[in-house]
Amino acid sequence: MGVKHHNHPYMTIHDFNQHSHIGWDNSLKPIAEVDSGQVVSYEITESSGGQFNKHSTVEDVKNMDFSKVNPTVGPVYVKGAEPGDTLEVELLDFQQLDWGWTAIIPGFGLLSDDFKDPQIKIFDLKNKNTTQFIDGINLFMKPFPGTIGVALPEEGSFSVVPPRKNGGNMDIRHLTKGAKLYLPVWVEGALFSIGDTHAAQGDGEVCGTAIEASMETTVRFKLHKGKTIQEPRFEIPGPPTPEADSCGYYVTTAHGEDMFQASQNAIRYMIEHLAREYKMTEQEAYMLCSVAVDLKINEIVDAPNWLVSAFLPNAIFK
Amino acid sequence: MGVKHHNHPYMTIHDFNQHSHIGWDNSLKPIAEVDSGQVVSYEITESSGGQFNKHSTVEDVKNMDFSKVNPTVGPVYVKGAEPGDTLEVELLDFQQLDWGWTAIIPGFGLLSDDFKDPQIKIFDLKNKNTTQFIDGINLFMKPFPGTIGVALPEEGSFSVVPPRKNGGNMDIRHLTKGAKLYLPVWVEGALFSIGDTHAAQGDGEVCGTAIEASMETTVRFKLHKGKTIQEPRFEIPGPPTPEADSCGYYVTTAHGEDMFQASQNAIRYMIEHLAREYKMTEQEAYMLCSVAVDLKINEIVDAPNWLVSAFLPNAIFK
Repeated sequence: MGVKHHNHPYMTIHDFNQHSHIGWDNSLKPIAEVDSGQVVSYEITESSGGQFNKHSTVEDVKNMDFSKVNPTVGPVYVKGAEPGDTLEVELLDFQQLDWGWTAIIPGFGLLSDDFKDPQIKIFDLKNKNTTQFIDGINLFMKPFPGTIGVALPEEGSFSVVPPRKNGGNMDIRHLTKGAKLYLPVWVEGALFSIGDTHAAQGDGEVCGTAIEASMETTVRFKLHKGKTIQEPRFEIPGPPTPEADSCGYYVTTAHGEDMFQASQNAIRYMIEHLAREYKMTEQEAYMLCSVAVDLKINEIVDAPNWLVSAFLPNAIFK
Repeated sequence: MGVKHHNHPYMTIHDFNQHSHIGWDNSLKPIAEVDSGQVVSYEITESSGGQFNKHSTVEDVKNMDFSKVNPTVGPVYVKGAEPGDTLEVELLDFQQLDWGWTAIIPGFGLLSDDFKDPQIKIFDLKNKNTTQFIDGINLFMKPFPGTIGVALPEEGSFSVVPPRKNGGNMDIRHLTKGAKLYLPVWVEGALFSIGDTHAAQGDGEVCGTAIEASMETTVRFKLHKGKTIQEPRFEIPGPPTPEADSCGYYVTTAHGEDMFQASQNAIRYMIEHLAREYKMTEQEAYMLCSVAVDLKINEIVDAPNWLVSAFLPNAIFK
């Protein structure tokens, strides 16, 4: 069966492949029913859905079937949830497995026009605090689910790639242990699903992938009846990034009427900086930006030019 | 004269009105010449250019002459600076005066379509660490110059409002004490100007104004010959926001194909939250977002929808 009810309120969902789906569809049959207050532990497979392993090479990226990415486990039916309610999902714990990957996938990513060749990097995640990017650069582990959401009210099947009013593939790196995510409920039972666990990521996820890693993820549901929100919200209990913050940042900026293009330029400048100052290729620099550099909006009022910046944490350099 | 050369390398520029200009124009006559290594202290008038004072009311906002805003002091000629060099400006110290203001200026700001009525809030800045927003909400003082830049290579006069490749009105709240800003040099002598000092601001400056405040600002110039950058960069020596970070954040998110509109929605949700949960008007909530809430880009790759979030620091609530 794979869905095991322990002593309530604890439940473990095993057998990811038996309980996963790709995309959002409110006609999917729930794999379990839970009450508000239920704790559920999920065994989540990384976002390639098993297409990659710790020995994968660039050939595997070339042969990747993009229609199979981002499987999520679910849906779970939350008893009593109705449209107009809010479903709280508290992120309780993450137990990551021993490896992860980051890839440049042609046609995908903020700089897909600049980086047309595939690339992949495999990470050793046996140390739960840091992982080596290249010699002299160590990243801080901050596990979170990239994709987390509920069913949409509209009938049909919707791609899992873009986030929507149901949450989904939001790739919010702040949804780490201790965070509480609030999702608007759009259908009876909410129909919650989760997947795409990441071991680390920068704000922006610019190359399109984080450190993608399989992970046992434990959450607690809480239903807020009659509390209505239009899009997801969340709370975090402390500093977002104390480890990365500790030694300051090197920051590139870019201005423009279009924040997407400004973000592209800020990341291009950062790639140029990384490739020049450290011993890495531009592909490596692009991937490092995706897993460690944060995009911020500095001003969005001084028309016609907005300003975006890319923050590189000094603490990752030994 | 107003420009006093103390024992080199220290210089103070007094008499703001005698030494300020509005907009960027590389034909402006320098008010001083400095060498690399020079420390300069500027007496900077807040961004209304003296149109507001600590007793100003909404009537003063109605009568404001927008063509007179954001005067900057300068330009200062940096000896030896040539196009293709980089001018480093280290932010050494800020001595703020005893009051500041934040205003909603009709036609200006991220939500100018929602907020059509003028408003102004005067802050007591005598305490150098925090200032009260309303009863129960105290903001952390993080002084920085909103406008800081060099002359453009193109002939003519350019509005001071938008930031450009010369820096300018970047409104980067991270340029606080200890930060080093790197500006690309576009003309001989660089022609550096600075103004628009802010006592506090959130990333985004969403209502269009920060806590605008007159301030004595001290910087150190350093010329990097032959080091070329395309747009401004900067470095900060430690955590960007340790005080605000300390108690975590309440965060609204919004998705969409347009990051400007997503940012508008994230701020609208935050205003709704603030007005509902705390005793404040929507105008106050909008101004609070401008001076204390940070906009972040969470993902910019999951086409066609990007995700933006607005971070409200819990630490500002008593």
